[in-house]
Amino acid sequence: MESCVMAIVDTFRFSDAEYEGRLARLRRAMDAAGIDTLITSDPSNMAWITGYDGWSFYVHQAVIVRAFGAPVWFGREQDAQGALRTVYMADPDIIAYPDIYVQSPDRHPMDYLAARLTDRGWHKGRIGVEMDNYWFSARGYQALCAGLPQPPVDATGLVNWQRGVKSDAELDRMRKAARLVERMHARIADRIEPGMRKCDLVAEIYDAALRYDPDLGFGGDYPAIVPLLPSGTDAAAPHLTWDDRPMRRGEGTFFEIAGCFRRYHCPLSRTIFLGRPTQAFLDAEKAVLEGMDRGLEAARAGNTCEDIAIAFFDVLKKHGIRKDNRTGYPIGLSYPPDWGERTCSLRPGDRTVLKPGMTFHFMTGLWLEDMGFEITESIVIRDGAPECLADVPRRLIVKD
Amino acid sequence: MESCVMAIVDTFRFSDAEYEGRLARLRRAMDAAGIDTLITSDPSNMAWITGYDGWSFYVHQAVIVRAFGAPVWFGREQDAQGALRTVYMADPDIIAYPDIYVQSPDRHPMDYLAARLTDRGWHKGRIGVEMDNYWFSARGYQALCAGLPQPPVDATGLVNWQRGVKSDAELDRMRKAARLVERMHARIADRIEPGMRKCDLVAEIYDAALRYDPDLGFGGDYPAIVPLLPSGTDAAAPHLTWDDRPMRRGEGTFFEIAGCFRRYHCPLSRTIFLGRPTQAFLDAEKAVLEGMDRGLEAARAGNTCEDIAIAFFDVLKKHGIRKDNRTGYPIGLSYPPDWGERTCSLRPGDRTVLKPGMTFHFMTGLWLEDMGFEITESIVIRDGAPECLADVPRRLIVKD
Repeated sequence: MESCVMAIVDTFRFSDAEYEGRLARLRRAMDAAGIDTLITSDPSNMAWITGYDGWSFYVHQAVIVRAFGAPVWFGREQDAQGALRTVYMADPDIIAYPDIYVQSPDRHPMDYLAARLTDRGWHKGRIGVEMDNYWFSARGYQALCAGLPQPPVDATGLVNWQRGVKSDAELDRMRKAARLVERMHARIADRIEPGMRKCDLVAEIYDAALRYDPDLGFGGDYPAIVPLLPSGTDAAAPHLTWDDRPMRRGEGTFFEIAGCFRRYHCPLSRTIFLGRPTQAFLDAEKAVLEGMDRGLEAARAGNTCEDIAIAFFDVLKKHGIRKDNRTGYPIGLSYPPDWGERTCSLRPGDRTVLKPGMTFHFMTGLWLEDMGFEITESIVIRDGAPECLADVPRRLIVKD
Repeated sequence: MESCVMAIVDTFRFSDAEYEGRLARLRRAMDAAGIDTLITSDPSNMAWITGYDGWSFYVHQAVIVRAFGAPVWFGREQDAQGALRTVYMADPDIIAYPDIYVQSPDRHPMDYLAARLTDRGWHKGRIGVEMDNYWFSARGYQALCAGLPQPPVDATGLVNWQRGVKSDAELDRMRKAARLVERMHARIADRIEPGMRKCDLVAEIYDAALRYDPDLGFGGDYPAIVPLLPSGTDAAAPHLTWDDRPMRRGEGTFFEIAGCFRRYHCPLSRTIFLGRPTQAFLDAEKAVLEGMDRGLEAARAGNTCEDIAIAFFDVLKKHGIRKDNRTGYPIGLSYPPDWGERTCSLRPGDRTVLKPGMTFHFMTGLWLEDMGFEITESIVIRDGAPECLADVPRRLIVKD
């Protein structure tokens, strides 16, 4: 298999030392949580631990980590080929289940896994699973309970928390993703005009997200979320995608998009008004930009997540704007449906201490009664002022 | 909210009669399963029942159906705005949880839902949940168990099975998706050449998938799976996505892609060889095309899923090719991570009876030791020969 393995990995993998460092970090966390065997089903966690990459997360799969030995890849037989081609481990240990376990009412892949763990004597001790994760189901949990001597314990977020502080190699990927999102926003600003159909604008966004740039020396990967770009009163709803109708003069549209380089993301939102912006948009711009400045001042190592949120919310309050939702989340390596890391949140009450190398999407979006407004930044925490990953003019863009 | 509601729905919704027919069908199935209250978290099921559309499935949400009354939308407070704009129900009944429930270690959205069900007196009777679905977690199950008088029962696939036979309005959307996938394959065949970077080809694929076509009168939506297009020996792995390196002469690449029109899919795969194809590719083409013909002959109302699979596998066997995985699945309305419906499968042992209006991706892909080969069709079951949704030349495409 050696020649196959070479075909992909040289562009996708990190160094062995990087993976070994991650594994050591994870094992310390497992030890602290009293977990002997960790079954992690989140594709972002699987990739972070092993380098595994592929759109196979629609069937059950996992990476298994114990105190000693290399991580084990578990998944569908046909996807073992993808594991061989993408994981960093030499001669990887793979547990592959036959296709009859796929979407079968009679048997579950976790039945198979419980049996293989038992074969290896790994069924003893505390086994951790991600109880609140898209990729590990309630039925999978029941199958493991039935097939193991004792129920697994909840290890939701255990790996995710280890991913918080980024290595230099990870930051390098995020900076490359930032170049892509800069290009995407420049393209939008250049091409948008009244009458342009929204699906055509999305085609432009993908084009700018993906194409190889000889000056940059790379092209783009798919982001974990498709472009969100609701217009007018629909922009009060944060998660609408697009349709094929023409964009209209007199409406604002926010663009919540991310550049993605080898699964690492740089999300960034901007808002464009076609025509003369209403006072509400100008007021929102003023409040958000001022709040953004205060939030960025609070975004430094030693402060906490809530410090950023409170600094931002205080400015909004002064401007008479109420925001009922968190104002950011950690980012980095991700697969659909979310480019967030699902650990801490920028919101009052979250006292997670900020450390150098943590990365956040400072999500200062406003979804008001009849409009939406987003000007956001993705940042790297440092001892001093944070690094803003991308350089996109931080203002309401007006195009007439 | 009336003006907001109008903004989206006219392009996305089906008729009220269509939704009411679906609800009646679902209620018969609930009654047969002895389920009083169904909590369905799958976004495809939520959309099928209510029309709800949005990229909000990365947080917990559901549609609740009981024997009487309109369906209830449950989700995050900020996404209620999206529900108001997309569901078919007039004056919709919405249960929205505050943002502090989002990705919190201390509280779970299903705690909130259990309390609201109890408020309404809906906590009694048998409550069905989707135990083996990406969008309902093991922790959500535990939260409902803790908050309700008795544990919910498993209703995985209950809604999905109702979606199997498509209405004329649904088939119309799938035929539109077929026009898009035809355009996508035509674009690939036109643009691909040795030296072209794969990410640039993906940009072309998205362009053809999305842009408004004045002749067709519509543009495209995002498919539930990103383009899969591994080359050379990497094509032995079915679920690799892309990188930014040049494509090479002397390699075959399969393109597993789908057109998508308002969340309805038409998947279709083709394989392209750059240069002179090896005998292995020519052999695979011969076997797959012959097997496809036999399979299509078996694909008619009254036969079963396994009839199609056995017809196809018999031809492969004759050609000395072994395929260890299912050869198709039902398709239609879908959200990531999968454009399949996750009910029946085209494989030996699946005796699901084929009915007119069922739609399948006849997935005749081969992932062999050092190559991959995919020529597939999406079909509509009829009393006679099936309708092939798309018209793309059914052969190995060779480009020198």
